[in-house]
Order: sequence, then C-alpha cells, then structure tokens
Amino acid sequence: MKQYTDLNTSPRLLLGPGPSTVHPRVLRAMAHPLVGHLDPQFIALMNEVQEMLRVVFQTENQLTVPVSGTGSAAMEASLCNFVEPGDSVVIGVCGYFGERLCDIAGRYGAEVRRLDRPVGEVFEVGEFEAELERKPAKLVALVHAETSTGVLQPMEGLADVVHRYGGLLVMDCVTSLGGVPVKVDEWDVDIAYSCSQKCLGAPSGLGPITVGPRAVEVLNARQAPVTNWYLDLSLLSKYWGSERTYHHTAPISMNYALREALRMVLEEGLEARFARHRANAELLWEGLQDLGLELFVPVERRLVPLTTVKVPEGIDEAAVRSELLQTYNIEIAGGLGATKGKVWRIGLMGYSSQPQNVLALLGALERLIS
Amino acid sequence: MKQYTDLNTSPRLLLGPGPSTVHPRVLRAMAHPLVGHLDPQFIALMNEVQEMLRVVFQTENQLTVPVSGTGSAAMEASLCNFVEPGDSVVIGVCGYFGERLCDIAGRYGAEVRRLDRPVGEVFEVGEFEAELERKPAKLVALVHAETSTGVLQPMEGLADVVHRYGGLLVMDCVTSLGGVPVKVDEWDVDIAYSCSQKCLGAPSGLGPITVGPRAVEVLNARQAPVTNWYLDLSLLSKYWGSERTYHHTAPISMNYALREALRMVLEEGLEARFARHRANAELLWEGLQDLGLELFVPVERRLVPLTTVKVPEGIDEAAVRSELLQTYNIEIAGGLGATKGKVWRIGLMGYSSQPQNVLALLGALERLIS
Repeated sequence: MKQYTDLNTSPRLLLGPGPSTVHPRVLRAMAHPLVGHLDPQFIALMNEVQEMLRVVFQTENQLTVPVSGTGSAAMEASLCNFVEPGDSVVIGVCGYFGERLCDIAGRYGAEVRRLDRPVGEVFEVGEFEAELERKPAKLVALVHAETSTGVLQPMEGLADVVHRYGGLLVMDCVTSLGGVPVKVDEWDVDIAYSCSQKCLGAPSGLGPITVGPRAVEVLNARQAPVTNWYLDLSLLSKYWGSERTYHHTAPISMNYALREALRMVLEEGLEARFARHRANAELLWEGLQDLGLELFVPVERRLVPLTTVKVPEGIDEAAVRSELLQTYNIEIAGGLGATKGKVWRIGLMGYSSQPQNVLALLGALERLIS
Repeated sequence: MKQYTDLNTSPRLLLGPGPSTVHPRVLRAMAHPLVGHLDPQFIALMNEVQEMLRVVFQTENQLTVPVSGTGSAAMEASLCNFVEPGDSVVIGVCGYFGERLCDIAGRYGAEVRRLDRPVGEVFEVGEFEAELERKPAKLVALVHAETSTGVLQPMEGLADVVHRYGGLLVMDCVTSLGGVPVKVDEWDVDIAYSCSQKCLGAPSGLGPITVGPRAVEVLNARQAPVTNWYLDLSLLSKYWGSERTYHHTAPISMNYALREALRMVLEEGLEARFARHRANAELLWEGLQDLGLELFVPVERRLVPLTTVKVPEGIDEAAVRSELLQTYNIEIAGGLGATKGKVWRIGLMGYSSQPQNVLALLGALERLIS
C-alpha cells in the first residue's frame, strides 16, 4: 500500500487573496483538545464568538453567527434564506463575486436584475435608485470589497434608497471585514457576510454572517421552508440562540481558531487594525510603483487588504508567481474572471499585513521582473 | 470592553455520538502552518485525502471528496444533487436521521415516500422491493448506522433491488465509516456520505462523500442546475478533479487534520480498526449489563461505534450526564428524537475507542447510578 509521509508543506508567506498567514496563537488554539458541541463550555464559547463577531461587524444584530462552511456558504446563506421563487433581486456586478451572487440568486428562483459596471469601477447610489424606481426589488445585493478586482465600493447612503423601496440590502464583506471599516449598523445593512481566512486571520472554514431585524422579519414571514437545509437560518438561529436545538455538529476546532483570531482583533482594536492594514498597503503601493509597476485601481477606490497590479507587457505572469512560490515561498495570486492574466492580486490581510512581508515581496519581485 | 481569557476548556473524554476525542497527532497536523488552497502542495494533499477516503469507503469511485461542511452538509449534497422537483424518493425511516433525509429531500421538491420501522428495528430488503414494485423511485435512501438509536442496518442485497427498478441507492454512513465495515463497491451503493468527527477521528467540519458512476450519469443528465450552489457536485468535481477550477476556498487546516486522521486509519488497517472498535464495544456492553443496565438494541443489530442503553426507572438521565461531565470529565449523550429521555448514547469511536476509556466510564457510572 502507498505510504503517506508526515505533513511537510513549505512555510509559505501567504500574500494572496486568502487564506492569509495564520498567527501561531490561532494555530495553537485550534490544536486545543476538543469538547463536545453541546458541552456547556462550548456553548459559552459560541456566545463569545457571537459577541466578538458583533464587534467586528459593528452591529447589535442578535442573529450574528459563523456559518459552518466557508465564505461562499455564507454568501449562499445570505441569499437562499430571503429569496423565494419569483422574487425580484437587484445585483450590482463589477467583478467575479458579483457574478456569483447572480448565479446563486438565480438558482433559488429569483428574477435577477443585474446592474453592470466595468471591472475596476464602483456604483453610485443613484444607479440603484433609478433601477428601484423602475421596479422595486426584495433584495439588493452587492460586493463591498471585490476580491477579483481590488475595488472598494462605498456603502454610504445606499441602504436609505433600498429601504425606501421596501427592499433588503445584502453586503458581501468577505475581503473587507477586519481590514477596513465595515459598519453594518451605521450603514443600515440588513444582511452582511464574510469569511474567516482573510482579514480576521483564522483558517478557512467558517463564514460569519449577520442578519438585522428587517431581514429576520422577512425570514419569519417566508411561505415555504428554505430549500437549503444546511444553511437554513431559522434552524441555525435556534442552534446558536438560547434554545440550542441540535442542527448539525459545529466545527469545534474551527470555532476555537475563530475565537482566538477575534480575540486578537479586539486586543489590537479595530481602528489600530485598520490603520495597520492601510500603512502596509501604502508601503506596498509605493514600492510597486517604484518598481515601475502600474496599479490597476485608482487610489480613491482602491481596496486596502487586496491590491491589484497590472502585469507588465512581455512578462509571463504565471511564471513569476511560480518563481515567487518556489524560490521565495511567497504566494500571490493571478487575476480572476475578467482580470485573469491581466493583474496580480496581492493580499495584505490579518497577520500577513506586516511591513517585513511587504519588503520581502518587493525584493523578490524586483529580482524576478527586472 | 469585556475581556476574553485564554481558551481553557476542560480535558473531556468524548464518549458521546461525536466529536470523538482527537488524537494528538491529528491536532498537531491541524496546527501546521497553512499553505494556499491552490498551492501545488495543497493540491497534492487533496489527491492524498481523496485516495485515502477511497480506501476507507472501500471504493474506486473517482468522485470521492470531503465536502467543506459537516456530515449534515454531506447528507444534503447526497440528495440535492440528484433530486429534481417531482422526483420520487423512497426513504427508510427508523430514527432521527431518516427523518432528516425526508425533510431535506422534500425541500428540493421530491415526492417523499417514507417506509417506517419502529425505532430500534431494521429494514428487510423485501420491504423496499415491495415499495419499488408498486412504483419505481429515482432514489432510495437509508441510514446504515442510525446515531439516534444505535442500530446497524444490513446493506447486503439492497442495491440489486434498487437498481433493478432503475433507482440510485443513497447510504448514510456517518456513524459507521471507519468503525465497522462500509463496503461501497461490494454493496454497490451509488452515493454514500459520512463525517470527519466520529470513527475517522478528525474534528468536526468535513463531510466525506463518494459518488459512483450511475449517480454521476444522473448528475450529468440534470435538466436544471443544482439549486444548492455550495454543494453542487458538478462544480465540486471540477475543483477536486484535474481541472482545479476555483469554487470555494477549501478549509486548509481541516484537510490537514483529515489527512492525518486517514493516515492513522490506514496505518492501523481497516480490519484491525474494526476489531478494536468491536472489542471495546463488547467490553462496554458486558460492563453495562454487569451494572444491571439493559441495552436498547438486541446484539444482532446492535451498532458497534455507538451503544444505546436504557435509562433505569427512577434515574434522572440528564443529572447523570451532567455529573459525568462535571465530576469525571466524561461526555456521553442522551437520546435524540424518539429515544429522548429513554436512553443514553455512548460512543466508542476512533481514538475514543480504548479499553481504559470504557473502564473509566463504567467506574463512574457505577458510582452515579447505584
């Protein structure tokens, strides 16, 4: 029989779109011996995870939980619980993850009305307002931080418009949560979701979601049960709520990891964490420009945790990434969807956002592209 | 702001229905620094996990992957990919997890035809044959090891009948895989699923699934895309297959843990592992009977990894469990569904299946119930 060796992967510096490098404290917490998922000690831990998630989402929403799947599962939970067949949904698309929102909403029978913007651009509130004036929608969904393009979508003022027309606002903050301000209550966002493995600094495997009172009302008023049993928030809220009704067996170790990662976010403080992410991103931007590289997104809508940089003409972008990985143990990513082959994507998220990491990458890139 | 302490849960001996106690080697592997999910080293690891899962499922099925959710997600994947609205599905129900199969299949629009058996009993092949003769079904689903009752359902001969009537056979082996023989190919099961946290000995968070060629054909012949995007096996098979098309970010650390747990299963050998599980279960059964307790299931259909034992009259079953946990750091479970309040459920799964654990539990129980 084939022999399998000890796990022996290389010590990568993770500067792609996630997972980001995980701090030793988080790894150590994850390796803590397990308790059962209905153990009073685990239930206390579930409460703590929920409390800390509320702090990072900047919300008071009771229904704030880590979905027991990745950020993609949380995205699906944000749609499948609120869409019933025939419901009208307006989705802003200016990258890969906007496309995915359309795909998922369509699978649950939504009438999907896409608003498109060229890759690299953002939406104005007025575009949504014009579309809703034409015809209201049950949901309006868009991506706060588009991981495929490196663009940050401003959120101010959007909820007012969506609510005026009777809709719910869904926000993808997979790449922003914990790295740049995400103000769920101040922005009056109804449903927001993220992942564990980017700016929160835990391994991949959990998908935090927060659901506000308007959205809970819509959930409670559903005619039919949610098609998706695993992501049914009415069941999940009983498991994570005071009833503790068994639904599935929560991933114990992943919740240990998320708890420790959230604890580190709170210890650092949100504002200090955002400032760190910005300072290291600026160091990166400056360094890339010094190397003669051109950033893909203008500074005013550039995403801090994930930088997209144009691949210079004549350079084999995949070969550079491969050399970075093989020679320097540094991971960055290529483009995704419309940006494929055109950009590199460099993440400075969570524990990966350190000046020495930026300098290592800049030094390696200099050797590979000059 | 509230202070959160270092993670400091008690060292529990996990003798409930899962998670089972995780071996230090698995915990250590899980704490290994992360690589990216598209790193060639992770892709090699994905291949290894798939190979080893095929060994434990005793199958050659190419489409054998760990779903990035718990066993409940794998259960849903086993139904939602194959059921289209109006499809007829026959489900054998003699416990909580049979009920859940009905719930999920119904959500995807199946015509659910239940076969019921009293809790504690098993089905005869003839019962399914009679039902299929009456009317064929696209899927026939049942639970191999019913975690809520402690019963093992024999599988021999069932697939022949199901296939003769043109259906696919779905088997829940959440509580059996890695603890008692699960022979997917020999039994000709089309779709089987399990979890990571029971007899495989990894933490909760992944749901292994294996899909045979007949089922892949049905998947490929679907009219509409699978409603459930996250669990869409046509997308997952491209991510885990040779194309490596990005779908979601696999839970890296969980796959590290599963790989190490599987490696330990293969090192021990399936037959030796089954023998160990049986020997320790027999030690438990004997000891429980010596204490004057009555086992819930007759020995001929009794499940090895999970024993159900009747709560003696006059005993507060929850108080006993609470004392076991608080005084002795031992977790066992109460009943679930129809067995609630009537039985205790004692798991001897994976690394938890050790004679010294059995003796510790028996000693503690003796002090608490006599």
